[in-house]
Amino acid sequence: MFDSIIYQKRRQALREKIQSGIILLLGNNEAPANYPDNTYKYRQDSSFIYFFGQSHPGYAGIIDADNGEDYFFGDDVDMDDIIWMGPQPSIKELAAQVGVSKSFPTDKLKDFIGKAISQRRKIHFLPPYRHDTMMQLEDLTGIRASMTRSHASVELIKAIVSLRSVKEACEIAEIDKACNVGYEMHTAAMRLCKPGVSEQYIAGILEGIAASYGRMVSFATILTQHGETLHNHDHSQLLQEGRLMLTDAGAELMSYYCSDHTRTVPVGGKFTSRQRDVYNIVLACHDKALELAKPGITYKSVHLEVCKVLAQGLKDLNLMKGDIDDAVAAGAHALFLPHGLGHMMGLDVHDMENLGQNYVGFDDEVQPSTQFGLSALRMGRRLQEGFVITDEPGCYFIPALIDKWRTEKQHTDFLNFDEIEKFKDFGGIRLEDDILITPEGSRFTGEKRIPITVEEVEAIMNE
Amino acid sequence: MFDSIIYQKRRQALREKIQSGIILLLGNNEAPANYPDNTYKYRQDSSFIYFFGQSHPGYAGIIDADNGEDYFFGDDVDMDDIIWMGPQPSIKELAAQVGVSKSFPTDKLKDFIGKAISQRRKIHFLPPYRHDTMMQLEDLTGIRASMTRSHASVELIKAIVSLRSVKEACEIAEIDKACNVGYEMHTAAMRLCKPGVSEQYIAGILEGIAASYGRMVSFATILTQHGETLHNHDHSQLLQEGRLMLTDAGAELMSYYCSDHTRTVPVGGKFTSRQRDVYNIVLACHDKALELAKPGITYKSVHLEVCKVLAQGLKDLNLMKGDIDDAVAAGAHALFLPHGLGHMMGLDVHDMENLGQNYVGFDDEVQPSTQFGLSALRMGRRLQEGFVITDEPGCYFIPALIDKWRTEKQHTDFLNFDEIEKFKDFGGIRLEDDILITPEGSRFTGEKRIPITVEEVEAIMNE
Repeated sequence: MFDSIIYQKRRQALREKIQSGIILLLGNNEAPANYPDNTYKYRQDSSFIYFFGQSHPGYAGIIDADNGEDYFFGDDVDMDDIIWMGPQPSIKELAAQVGVSKSFPTDKLKDFIGKAISQRRKIHFLPPYRHDTMMQLEDLTGIRASMTRSHASVELIKAIVSLRSVKEACEIAEIDKACNVGYEMHTAAMRLCKPGVSEQYIAGILEGIAASYGRMVSFATILTQHGETLHNHDHSQLLQEGRLMLTDAGAELMSYYCSDHTRTVPVGGKFTSRQRDVYNIVLACHDKALELAKPGITYKSVHLEVCKVLAQGLKDLNLMKGDIDDAVAAGAHALFLPHGLGHMMGLDVHDMENLGQNYVGFDDEVQPSTQFGLSALRMGRRLQEGFVITDEPGCYFIPALIDKWRTEKQHTDFLNFDEIEKFKDFGGIRLEDDILITPEGSRFTGEKRIPITVEEVEAIMNE
Repeated sequence: MFDSIIYQKRRQALREKIQSGIILLLGNNEAPANYPDNTYKYRQDSSFIYFFGQSHPGYAGIIDADNGEDYFFGDDVDMDDIIWMGPQPSIKELAAQVGVSKSFPTDKLKDFIGKAISQRRKIHFLPPYRHDTMMQLEDLTGIRASMTRSHASVELIKAIVSLRSVKEACEIAEIDKACNVGYEMHTAAMRLCKPGVSEQYIAGILEGIAASYGRMVSFATILTQHGETLHNHDHSQLLQEGRLMLTDAGAELMSYYCSDHTRTVPVGGKFTSRQRDVYNIVLACHDKALELAKPGITYKSVHLEVCKVLAQGLKDLNLMKGDIDDAVAAGAHALFLPHGLGHMMGLDVHDMENLGQNYVGFDDEVQPSTQFGLSALRMGRRLQEGFVITDEPGCYFIPALIDKWRTEKQHTDFLNFDEIEKFKDFGGIRLEDDILITPEGSRFTGEKRIPITVEEVEAIMNE
């Protein structure tokens, strides 16, 4: 937890943006896995953490935009709780730790909201993403649970996005720490990547590292020899010499700040010549993004410049043809890169994704696209100092998609399907780092960069 | 997954017990952690797994008790799914793997249930424990989400409890395997238990082992030097020489079968004389349960016999006094053992807890108690061959509870508070194994027993 003044300042800044009404931030409850008391590792809501700092089920916070007061809701523990969960600070103490002087038991929340509703005051809340929160909102506001998402306050969403997008120094320090755990995870994966080892074994070790130094993995680990499946959570295969192992994994600290890195390495420690060719194209894409990322540029334009580097590289390999700018404008390259260059990162690995991609990654100036590939870009708007974003280009050979496009004769001016056909057994490569936008450009987060060049990767794998 | 015939037999057995109406088993959906697409590791519902075998979000199964048919509901993947999640078998193939020939897309489920309701047929469903399932049931049946639990079918609960309680040979083989992973976890914890190491580090390593060889931990790991807090999930402390580290942890296999073991070991590898005294009392309690557990005996009576061993041991240490049988009848020993001796284990670590403890652990003959301590017993009824249960006595010194009872002058005929006071810095000890009830008695599950005697524990810690 940060100093209480941090939370007070954030709430004050939010209040100034919202100006009137009640801002209701519900903390997360426990999430049952297979019965009510067998719960997943507790995960607080990120906006609750940002404004109210406390990580425990059953809390709620209210920021009154009219009278300038903040309120913290939660229940003190009883003897039964002490026996099963140990002594805990009082709600009053917890509230004080984040600079809130007014605290109440949870059952007062409904009265509070009910009174505000009867006074015709606006109740601002965020779109719920857990069904228990939807039902809680129904209970508090009378809005049907299934309709609560559409009643979320756009004003509140936009205000929170504007605050959380720009990371404070204390947040950047946490992200750097999370990336240090990410370094441990990815270098462990490289060292363990030997023929005959199971994907699941390595994925498990990474989860263990994340849990040993932080809270848990920041998202379900992708660790696969089928890197062409973008979010492949199947770890059922044994590693085979000659394949590539793609590992997209990150850590979430106790403070909830995240890391998110991807590396793709050759099983056995030596790239084949064909793997090296494609790998170096993706690395060049990655470097292009780093070169361009700075305050004032739109990330959509960075994405498109990266796509041109990819298309040029694939043209050099005789997989694409024709004019590169035209190919990218037409979206032909998306056969190989059907996702976007990156996303915001912070308290969430896709930061604020629950608030809506259109508010987080886009604005009045830069709007989402409907073109295949570009439509999956999560972050398009102008970069600002203090943004933390991922730079994660990839190149994939997805057999089902290749077959579909070939059959449909899509982009035949730009795609050499006869050559592409030969790569259907290739798999996929993705390389990802997290970068902080600085006054002049960008920097990597974390103390050390995870090995990324062909030489660095082969060196650590053959130590 | 087992052979399809296993699932067919189970569904047929259930049908015979229910006799009429529609049995609706909803599989679990994804569980969002901090935004809709960032989900916890997928966990299928255990009863769905038991009868329909498939582990993937968004499935439902229906067992028609009237016409003898089974139906599997789910959606085939589209190109977008293939790009992000990879190729998947069709729903028809998945249904066939578990012996179901009739499969339909998910949107047909509502029509199916609607038709059955209009025909005044009984819809049997289990009590939902996830809020998305409650909302899904509301959508399907018209019952308010918050009321769905109270509309669950007691007939279905009882029928499923009777089937799942007695483990089949294929299930016992899986539980044995899960316990082998538990062995790896607990022996790793013992080896890592050195002064200065953080509790969190070891807890993380255990999570990693569970994930490397299985799916995940079967419940949130308890690993603490404050073993007197029964479900202590705080791992924030560094290990200190002279303290005890209590580790209650288990694995859940890809098949979802579980393990659940507890060991308590001295940080640094050597028990103090006082620790050894209390430890050996708990071990004697554990052995008593093993000695008594066999078909026909109630687990409540085993629990009470174990409590007498505990009380006698504590009397020998001058912490208790008076007649042991009277002390246990009065519940005085519950100051030191406020929980029950054990619970069922299988596809859930507290097996079938979502169906209701009163149906799983009790019956018309053996009813739950309201006495402090005994009221926390989860399993009281007569044991049968094929039950898998935990044997987990403990002895805890809970400062807040000691203070409360002393102030209230509770059980002063049986408790030497002046002596107990000296143990307020002791912590707690729990020892737990999983046992299978055999025709003549019981056996441990898993290939090797995790070291448990003082000598065995000290030996492995000082290897």
